[in-house]
Amino acid sequence: MSRSVVAAMTAYTLELREAEIKLNQNESPFDFPRELKERVLARMAERPWNLYPDFESTALRTAIARAHDLTPENILVGNGSNELLAAAIGAFVGPGTPVVFPRPTFALYEKLVTIAGGLPIPIEFDPDSGLLPLDRMLDAIAKHQDAVAIVCSPNNPTGGVLPTGGRDALLKSGAMVLLDEAYGDFAQTRVSVPHENLVTFRTFSKAWGLAALRVGWLTSTAENCREIRKVKLPYSLNVISEAIAALALENREIRDRNVARIVAERERVSAAMQSIPKISVFPTRANFITFRTPRPLFDALWARGILVRDLSGYPRLQGCLRVSMGTREQNDAFLAALEEVV
Amino acid sequence: MSRSVVAAMTAYTLELREAEIKLNQNESPFDFPRELKERVLARMAERPWNLYPDFESTALRTAIARAHDLTPENILVGNGSNELLAAAIGAFVGPGTPVVFPRPTFALYEKLVTIAGGLPIPIEFDPDSGLLPLDRMLDAIAKHQDAVAIVCSPNNPTGGVLPTGGRDALLKSGAMVLLDEAYGDFAQTRVSVPHENLVTFRTFSKAWGLAALRVGWLTSTAENCREIRKVKLPYSLNVISEAIAALALENREIRDRNVARIVAERERVSAAMQSIPKISVFPTRANFITFRTPRPLFDALWARGILVRDLSGYPRLQGCLRVSMGTREQNDAFLAALEEVV
Repeated sequence: MSRSVVAAMTAYTLELREAEIKLNQNESPFDFPRELKERVLARMAERPWNLYPDFESTALRTAIARAHDLTPENILVGNGSNELLAAAIGAFVGPGTPVVFPRPTFALYEKLVTIAGGLPIPIEFDPDSGLLPLDRMLDAIAKHQDAVAIVCSPNNPTGGVLPTGGRDALLKSGAMVLLDEAYGDFAQTRVSVPHENLVTFRTFSKAWGLAALRVGWLTSTAENCREIRKVKLPYSLNVISEAIAALALENREIRDRNVARIVAERERVSAAMQSIPKISVFPTRANFITFRTPRPLFDALWARGILVRDLSGYPRLQGCLRVSMGTREQNDAFLAALEEVV
Repeated sequence: MSRSVVAAMTAYTLELREAEIKLNQNESPFDFPRELKERVLARMAERPWNLYPDFESTALRTAIARAHDLTPENILVGNGSNELLAAAIGAFVGPGTPVVFPRPTFALYEKLVTIAGGLPIPIEFDPDSGLLPLDRMLDAIAKHQDAVAIVCSPNNPTGGVLPTGGRDALLKSGAMVLLDEAYGDFAQTRVSVPHENLVTFRTFSKAWGLAALRVGWLTSTAENCREIRKVKLPYSLNVISEAIAALALENREIRDRNVARIVAERERVSAAMQSIPKISVFPTRANFITFRTPRPLFDALWARGILVRDLSGYPRLQGCLRVSMGTREQNDAFLAALEEVV
């Protein structure tokens, strides 16, 4: 028998459906360049597979540090940013620790806090303004001692961001802030300077288009990195994913081009959706658009070959769908199907 | 500030030293066949890297199930067996849960139990007999309600195993048993039939020689797998490691040949070491040999180009070293150096 908090949890699931156009997981529509794939894989065939990865992932941490004017001591890398989030929660959230976070947000946070025995303090908000509920988060932090705050900005699955100055206001509150910037590239947000109350998470899964490889990283002070590293499993990043991420950083125009195309599409598609009657589109700075529909449309879109994410299971997102930005052609097909089914 | 249990922990570290002959991490000395490397990497260049891995890792779970007469519902795969151990501890160990385990053993267990807020109940034992302290574990389990037991058999870093019938005795005790069989291939242990009180962990890092790729798996009842999966992070296994492990399973003679060579070397080297005066060799069923030396010899061996693991930091292993089995030539170099420095 699993322990009671786990038995009471529902599993993180994903409805598996096939579709011609897959816009349900916030993946990049652009694959990594074939020539670079072949170059790095040729190197990987030479490398011994029987030996463990470098204990400190020094090559990749150094490459990330160089790209963001940081030092390797400010960086941890992991098997997707999820792994690093779990490690940071393990380091800072124990039995009874109050954890303040906006809701709806990425469901994994509440799950990890629950497993750690922390006290989830969700701040419910409506996504219509495109802003996260900063003031109410600050109120909740002020009411609890030694609070931890978790913020995803731009927020998954709503697309909204912290108001201007929001991060600094959170840092002044004294809470330990775990800032998930998985979608930060699409908001053109610079990676934060290390601060003793801040841990920032980034990923290669979205803007870089490397979701298949599972590589994420975090940045904070050297001391916070040392503490989180105690909780993180050793050798969590395999040698091939590490090498691919390091090669990607030598070719930053890949990310810049992906981001420019996806942001342009987001603005174009969002404007087009706003002209469709009965659809309510939430402001977004991410690589997806979340919108409210007058009646359930998920199945009707799917019947037309378009797979989006049904958000009806999330609090306050009854009747909402999330569409990831695809190629121009995929997005046009989505828009045509949406106009048809509304 | 990290929470107090984490602040009080020491980091899992590995002394990083270069050496001509590296026998310190229980790695296989045999790389994966070059022809198979190239075949699977060519397939991986074709696959999109911008899309997430299959949500359920169905291909690899099915391949493992077929290889061991199980069903995919009895299998979870992860990013090294460490990740699955952490998830199982998250599912079964909460604040105050008594966790019985032999000590010395793999240091990660106690660390993960501490992070989960469990109550570690180490059963200290001397590794001289080559057997784990079954009776004293059963006594400790009987004294505590709802205990969890963690056993590594063959045990890292001592090489000993549970006495015959030990697993069944543990299952009869009513404890939830987490059985780490990372080294099980070298003891020619068959994977256990699923049982509601048993979770068994296996890895591709040792006998398969795929440590660089980080692939592990567990088997238990379908219900236990469902509960552990709630705690495990989604998408933890990248697509390349998954494909490599699945291809390995189609070529099981690789593992069988590796195991036969390593077991033969273990028996040969162990016999040779027993004839060296002043060295006390512990019985081992793993791919390494642990031994007590009359005075510290780690640096003297290293000066001769041989890197082994210094176990002096482990309880009851003062003056002990662990040597992983290498190729015949590497092992001969180790034996020659050992005779010289004793």
